[in-house]
Amino acid sequence: MATWTDYDKLKAAKSLENAEKADLVKEMTENGAKRVKKYAVPMACGLTYNYAAKAVNDDILDKLQALADEAELADKFELLYNGDVINTGEKRLVLHQLTRGQLGKDVVADGVNKRDFYTGVQKKIADFAKIIHKGTIKTETGDKFTEVVQIGIGGSDLGPRAMYIALENWAKKNDKFKMKAHFISNVDPDDAAGVLADVDCAHALFILVSKSGTTLETLTNESFVKDALRFRGLDPSKHMIAVTSETSPLAKSSEYLAAFFMDDYIGGRYSSTSAVGGAVLSLAFGPDVFADFLDGAAAEDKLAKGKDIRKNPAMLDALIGVYERNVLGYGATAVLPYSQALSRFPAHLQQADMESNGKSVNRFGKPVKYPTGPVIFGEPGTNGQHSFYQLLHQGTDIIPLQFIAFKAGQCGQDVDIQGSTSQQKLIANVVAQIVAFACGKDDKNKNKFFAGGRPSSLIIGEQLNPRSLGALLSHFENKIMFQGFAWNLNSFDQEGVQLGKVLAKQVLAKDYDGALKEYAGLFGM
Amino acid sequence: MATWTDYDKLKAAKSLENAEKADLVKEMTENGAKRVKKYAVPMACGLTYNYAAKAVNDDILDKLQALADEAELADKFELLYNGDVINTGEKRLVLHQLTRGQLGKDVVADGVNKRDFYTGVQKKIADFAKIIHKGTIKTETGDKFTEVVQIGIGGSDLGPRAMYIALENWAKKNDKFKMKAHFISNVDPDDAAGVLADVDCAHALFILVSKSGTTLETLTNESFVKDALRFRGLDPSKHMIAVTSETSPLAKSSEYLAAFFMDDYIGGRYSSTSAVGGAVLSLAFGPDVFADFLDGAAAEDKLAKGKDIRKNPAMLDALIGVYERNVLGYGATAVLPYSQALSRFPAHLQQADMESNGKSVNRFGKPVKYPTGPVIFGEPGTNGQHSFYQLLHQGTDIIPLQFIAFKAGQCGQDVDIQGSTSQQKLIANVVAQIVAFACGKDDKNKNKFFAGGRPSSLIIGEQLNPRSLGALLSHFENKIMFQGFAWNLNSFDQEGVQLGKVLAKQVLAKDYDGALKEYAGLFGM
Repeated sequence: MATWTDYDKLKAAKSLENAEKADLVKEMTENGAKRVKKYAVPMACGLTYNYAAKAVNDDILDKLQALADEAELADKFELLYNGDVINTGEKRLVLHQLTRGQLGKDVVADGVNKRDFYTGVQKKIADFAKIIHKGTIKTETGDKFTEVVQIGIGGSDLGPRAMYIALENWAKKNDKFKMKAHFISNVDPDDAAGVLADVDCAHALFILVSKSGTTLETLTNESFVKDALRFRGLDPSKHMIAVTSETSPLAKSSEYLAAFFMDDYIGGRYSSTSAVGGAVLSLAFGPDVFADFLDGAAAEDKLAKGKDIRKNPAMLDALIGVYERNVLGYGATAVLPYSQALSRFPAHLQQADMESNGKSVNRFGKPVKYPTGPVIFGEPGTNGQHSFYQLLHQGTDIIPLQFIAFKAGQCGQDVDIQGSTSQQKLIANVVAQIVAFACGKDDKNKNKFFAGGRPSSLIIGEQLNPRSLGALLSHFENKIMFQGFAWNLNSFDQEGVQLGKVLAKQVLAKDYDGALKEYAGLFGM
Repeated sequence: MATWTDYDKLKAAKSLENAEKADLVKEMTENGAKRVKKYAVPMACGLTYNYAAKAVNDDILDKLQALADEAELADKFELLYNGDVINTGEKRLVLHQLTRGQLGKDVVADGVNKRDFYTGVQKKIADFAKIIHKGTIKTETGDKFTEVVQIGIGGSDLGPRAMYIALENWAKKNDKFKMKAHFISNVDPDDAAGVLADVDCAHALFILVSKSGTTLETLTNESFVKDALRFRGLDPSKHMIAVTSETSPLAKSSEYLAAFFMDDYIGGRYSSTSAVGGAVLSLAFGPDVFADFLDGAAAEDKLAKGKDIRKNPAMLDALIGVYERNVLGYGATAVLPYSQALSRFPAHLQQADMESNGKSVNRFGKPVKYPTGPVIFGEPGTNGQHSFYQLLHQGTDIIPLQFIAFKAGQCGQDVDIQGSTSQQKLIANVVAQIVAFACGKDDKNKNKFFAGGRPSSLIIGEQLNPRSLGALLSHFENKIMFQGFAWNLNSFDQEGVQLGKVLAKQVLAKDYDGALKEYAGLFGM
């Protein structure tokens, strides 16, 4: 049992609001080195969460701890992993952590031990991937499959795609690269047409991913792909597998080589560690790489169980974010990985975070009177430095920053210019940016003046690999979960996407009037 | 001559603040069809700017017109295109519009007619591209060059890359596709290593783009590429051209097959229509395609000259944005193209906008007391619908939206499912979203309640092609310029990027202490 209370009804929230603010410029200028040492929490797989450059001090941290305790964040996570109906709106359990480890009691739902269900699916996928890699299942012309194409949208696209990009070069370097992956998502027919132009269809295995088996974009793209295969004289049923729920129309269709199951207890945006990510990643890199990715996530999940925010990086990150949003009034957060491999990681977090906590009602459907989820955006560094960082440094709004960086690159190729390698330059830049944002710089020429006081955190790792990527993903998933608990939201439904779907159907059926009809008319519809 | 006044000193700004707000839900629900017809401005190349779903009415539009007049927006644009030193901080002219057309008087600088200079460079690039395409200049093994790789960062990367992606499928469909383009930008060595793994180096022409010839990331990546070429037994000087300023160390180097010039009067983020975009786009698609792109931009620039906001889409878009930022208090804007080809267009606009107007001092270096540039982010629809739209619909903050959509796709391949094509579904979705955001939907279940009142505009076109893409780019460049004028900023410098560069050099030289040293130590530096 837990008590679910709106954020603004928590005593600790009031106390936090009244706490004296930390002077980030002064703190980092005068005690920066000490803070960097002190304000760090170990994560799993060699990662560390460093929050020296956040606008917090021991007093604020104590108050955040009080907030964590009063909001019962750890207890609520325990309820979640033990199988409570945390997704109240849709009356569903929330089990994505269970895909990668057993954090608490056995969870039985629909008469099945769900951990067994998830590991069973993983094993089926692993076996299938192995026979594809061996060439036991062949293409129609008797060759090996060499490419894989995921057809899915939203959670069936962004997460798996970001994870694939994150590990592609690592896999090539470490002899784990099995099949190139492509992704088709948009209902814009130019997406599928463009991707297929780069795919060797005769040697490609397509993965259709739709939990319900009814996602319009995905079914449409399936048809598009099947037409393209037939046009090339290929039999679609020999080139396609499905990832879907057991009750979906796709589950037992003879149109697929195989079907792998997901369930209603894992939302799309949390499905990278389910069969949704599992199929494409196991095929692309081998099941052992996917298993390592899960292990990394499981190790990080364990750290999220603790009640002490100074030892629980996801909970701490979440609460600092709440402080920045609700007390300091910041409306956006930038995710800035200094790693080209994480180029689409911010887009995945944009979905995970904004779709989970971009809500105006609490978990009981009552309007809340405080800001909830911020806008999330980001691009890799150093690219962003030559782009939108101008606003981050000198704009009129303060945007909190989330840096991510690794000591070593993935490819192991580098060049020494002016006495330093590219990797060293990359690191020098992330370090420099953190200090520049926090400390600023005075200048009589106000055009060259930097106010500083712009908070950031840094996740630092040894190298981006399957394990550390899993830990990184888990960190953010759990951060979002804790923020949802603190704001008393249901982070696991997405009613905000429904109205557009209904109206789009009306347009297609020409069942409309007013603005809808007039806009459609502009397009000749 | 013009009077440069801070936004909060304008009488019209005060009047705008006091104007009665438009009730967008009511307006669009009751008079939606009329508004869609009435609140539309023709753009160039078949585009239309429709602002029916913006929270404006005739009274607010009149006050925006008064603001445009009092802030002398049209006069300031005239000063700009006639060659005034609009970039006051760096004491430079601002001439990117001149790359695509002559809007006013001849502009002479450094003893040269600048229009002649830009068209001269275009001709040189066109001639070079033609002989590359013909195979007159061959690879070392006597073959044709088949791929092109741009090495650049920031403005030398985001704009050209976004434009390339926007036209790649169109070019393939229309028999204009000459060479595949790749882009290397990040100092992260995994970026260059990853890209080169996909490049046929023996048949690749590399374009080194750096105005100063001193951009650290770009020179580092140049060395990386040269090493890779030598490793493959290739002579880098036979595979590389430079786009740089005439005074740069790269300009007359024997290490390049050719050098094409840019100058200090075009900022990186405005350089897509200069040699920076011109070389890669002319090589990829042929000079005639690049010329069409310029023609589209020139046609749209002409519309930006007018004083009547109801006939000047860029000025109107800019002023509505100012109203949303400074009166309604919205902190971000989402750019949402319903076109997969525009997948990186939002990232380019993020740079163009946030680097131009993310400033806290006016053009005379005095701090301003009002919000300036917002956060810009976005992803293509319908993908975004399955991602961050939840927050846009039901989050606690209102985020203004900029939709872009085209009647026809680029590839001409489609599939009919459930009685409609994919293109029709795409359009139905953008139409539905606009109305859903504006009108909302009541529901007793507050979890399914949509407040509406979330403003959006729509740029609608026939098809995304070189001309309409040019017009689209010009629209946003000019919008940003007008907003900078309204806020009394210098939109054409970027002092905010300097501090980080200085500190990064200190880290590399180990010339540091305090937080900088401690952070560097975390990475073993």
